[in-house]
Amino acid sequence: MPSHPLITFASDFGTREYYVGAVKGAILSVNPEVRIVDTSHEIPSHDLLTAAFVLAGYYDTFPLRTIHLAVVDPEVGSNRRALVVQTSRHIFLAPDNGLLSLIFEREEVSRVIAVEADHHYRKPVSPTFHGRDIFAPVAGWISKGLDISAFGPEITDYKKLTLPGAKPVGEGVLEGFVLHIDKFGNIVTSFSETSIAQLGGLQEGSSFNLNDREITRQVGCYAEGGDGELLFLLGSSGYYEIASNKKAASRILDARRGMKVALRLIANR
Amino acid sequence: MPSHPLITFASDFGTREYYVGAVKGAILSVNPEVRIVDTSHEIPSHDLLTAAFVLAGYYDTFPLRTIHLAVVDPEVGSNRRALVVQTSRHIFLAPDNGLLSLIFEREEVSRVIAVEADHHYRKPVSPTFHGRDIFAPVAGWISKGLDISAFGPEITDYKKLTLPGAKPVGEGVLEGFVLHIDKFGNIVTSFSETSIAQLGGLQEGSSFNLNDREITRQVGCYAEGGDGELLFLLGSSGYYEIASNKKAASRILDARRGMKVALRLIANR
Amino acid sequence: MPSHPLITFASDFGTREYYVGAVKGAILSVNPEVRIVDTSHEIPSHDLLTAAFVLAGYYDTFPLRTIHLAVVDPEVGSNRRALVVQTSRHIFLAPDNGLLSLIFEREEVSRVIAVEADHHYRKPVSPTFHGRDIFAPVAGWISKGLDISAFGPEITDYKKLTLPGAKPVGEGVLEGFVLHIDKFGNIVTSFSETSIAQLGGLQEGSSFNLNDREITRQVGCYAEGGDGELLFLLGSSGYYEIASNKKAASRILDARRGMKVALRLIANR
Repeated sequence: MPSHPLITFASDFGTREYYVGAVKGAILSVNPEVRIVDTSHEIPSHDLLTAAFVLAGYYDTFPLRTIHLAVVDPEVGSNRRALVVQTSRHIFLAPDNGLLSLIFEREEVSRVIAVEADHHYRKPVSPTFHGRDIFAPVAGWISKGLDISAFGPEITDYKKLTLPGAKPVGEGVLEGFVLHIDKFGNIVTSFSETSIAQLGGLQEGSSFNLNDREITRQVGCYAEGGDGELLFLLGSSGYYEIASNKKAASRILDARRGMKVALRLIANR
Repeated sequence: MPSHPLITFASDFGTREYYVGAVKGAILSVNPEVRIVDTSHEIPSHDLLTAAFVLAGYYDTFPLRTIHLAVVDPEVGSNRRALVVQTSRHIFLAPDNGLLSLIFEREEVSRVIAVEADHHYRKPVSPTFHGRDIFAPVAGWISKGLDISAFGPEITDYKKLTLPGAKPVGEGVLEGFVLHIDKFGNIVTSFSETSIAQLGGLQEGSSFNLNDREITRQVGCYAEGGDGELLFLLGSSGYYEIASNKKAASRILDARRGMKVALRLIANR
Repeated sequence: MPSHPLITFASDFGTREYYVGAVKGAILSVNPEVRIVDTSHEIPSHDLLTAAFVLAGYYDTFPLRTIHLAVVDPEVGSNRRALVVQTSRHIFLAPDNGLLSLIFEREEVSRVIAVEADHHYRKPVSPTFHGRDIFAPVAGWISKGLDISAFGPEITDYKKLTLPGAKPVGEGVLEGFVLHIDKFGNIVTSFSETSIAQLGGLQEGSSFNLNDREITRQVGCYAEGGDGELLFLLGSSGYYEIASNKKAASRILDARRGMKVALRLIANR
């Protein structure tokens, strides 16, 4: 265990507002010894799917018992609940809006608490900024060792986004979608290594189709591709990606998040 | 008091330059034990009003005696002074250009020092980067416990921006302006809760007017609004905002920072 | 020496991805006591020259023995090597792609190690994310005191970009190029103070030429310039800049990185 507890922090608050600073201050006012680790604050506004994907991409690299705070909260101030989720390895704080969907899929969940203990909140609570007034102090108290049962009742009806990963649509053909487009223009598909492995895995001649373009070249890393060539490969997040060497595949293919992607497992003869 | 002192750091230096790293290194070279907390580095270039607003939005959430460094410094290298401001609760470092205006309004100021003690500077001092060569080492020395009187004489003629908050322009009608547009497209007006409360507060039927559009619906939180509906509400910064549920109100209204906003306190019959 | 070791971290990973968080987690999993200092994560994708310039702009401000991690890695997963570079003052980790070129120019290099000791890697190693799976754990182990010889053999044939700084092209005329355009629109040229000093230094009447515009006014700081006036001055990075007071000189001159810049040392009579 680190001598000073760790809280990771992701949000759609941006890097030109007071929001990130205000959350950090509110955490440190409860526990001045905690270390806050910025992960990603330029998540597109209100974008729960990107937030879920980003959190899923890093939480697992942190030491056991790290506290992960993720705030993308379009329904802030409404009756949507605030969650504290204890898994066998980590603790997560986020609004009950689906942001933790991939955590619920991947982690062994011990307890999910709906935060209600308002004596732990920062006062007065702004109905538009629970990140500062509820999540931050709760994260601070957890980092000081307070048991999460102190914050409210255990619940089981928390919200999960259903992400259609890989739907069979024909003989050896699966349909998925564009899960994410990263800063480099790499197109992350919803086909995970695990889901494809269960269906027999990729084969010689497997290919992807996006926006009526067939992508047939499988590589291990981006640099294997020729100039402007479209490639597919297993990305570092565990999902297959469509990419191009030092080029933005998203631009070449005019790809957008949510677009359909087909995966033909067996060569098209 | 935290075992390691805290320095918050905001600037318009951006997240693709060496400037932020250089300031941090110069602080840590003076006091390797200090903890630097990034708040916001994508403040628009030279934008003192945004910097003042952003700093005002977070400083108060931090533990007592936190050191707050904010560098937006269009006159760097000229004869504008560098300030250290001690208030009853915090310490602030910034150029003497109005950036601390809201701090001077809100905090009980004990001392304002004009930094002159160049034996504490990083050498040689670049005339274009006092953030690195003057503010950073001074912040470092303060975090080590050096009394701020060591840095120069006390002054009283520091610069304050005069921000017209709410000017009466007719029977029950106030004129203000757009103070800030945030990442979500929320339009923060210059009408603060305090100033409006002094005038009797908002009433049933109060409305805002911006760009010839009347905004009549008051809500507690964004999520109460219908799709594309324009709303007003009290924002987490203590100012009234014009907003829309999951939409950018700034785009709907074609709003720009500095535009006039009218507030009609009593219903228009 | 600080009680907790420092690792600075720059990358082109952006602030809306999981990449930055994943690297930090992988470092902290090896050494939970280390302090990671974000410097710049919005370096343009794959842009080695900007990465080299940014790193060169801050490393020197940090305490001795700081570990500097910089990951811009277009050839990730190919046979390009991963480097650990020990100089008399600092330690650097980066891909062997030229990113460290300015470090090799400026620092007294003691040892350059090609990382090969895969028992220190995070497993499984993704061929597309060595930042997380190789650089991060190696940085973590170095911060725990492991000697860098543990990671692989010493090499001497590491990659250096050759940056043409100042080429004489006529009587008292030098040709350079636009090295960097910063967030403020300041145009950093490849003419360094040192290189120009060796040629006798700037004189009364020296002038720059970019995009067929002659810039004749030398100032000490931006604020000396009139509205829209083009200026040149010695920037805080040690290179001469073309700038304008509170305006983006890059926009006035339609300047792009890589463009030719001429410097006429002696007045044009």
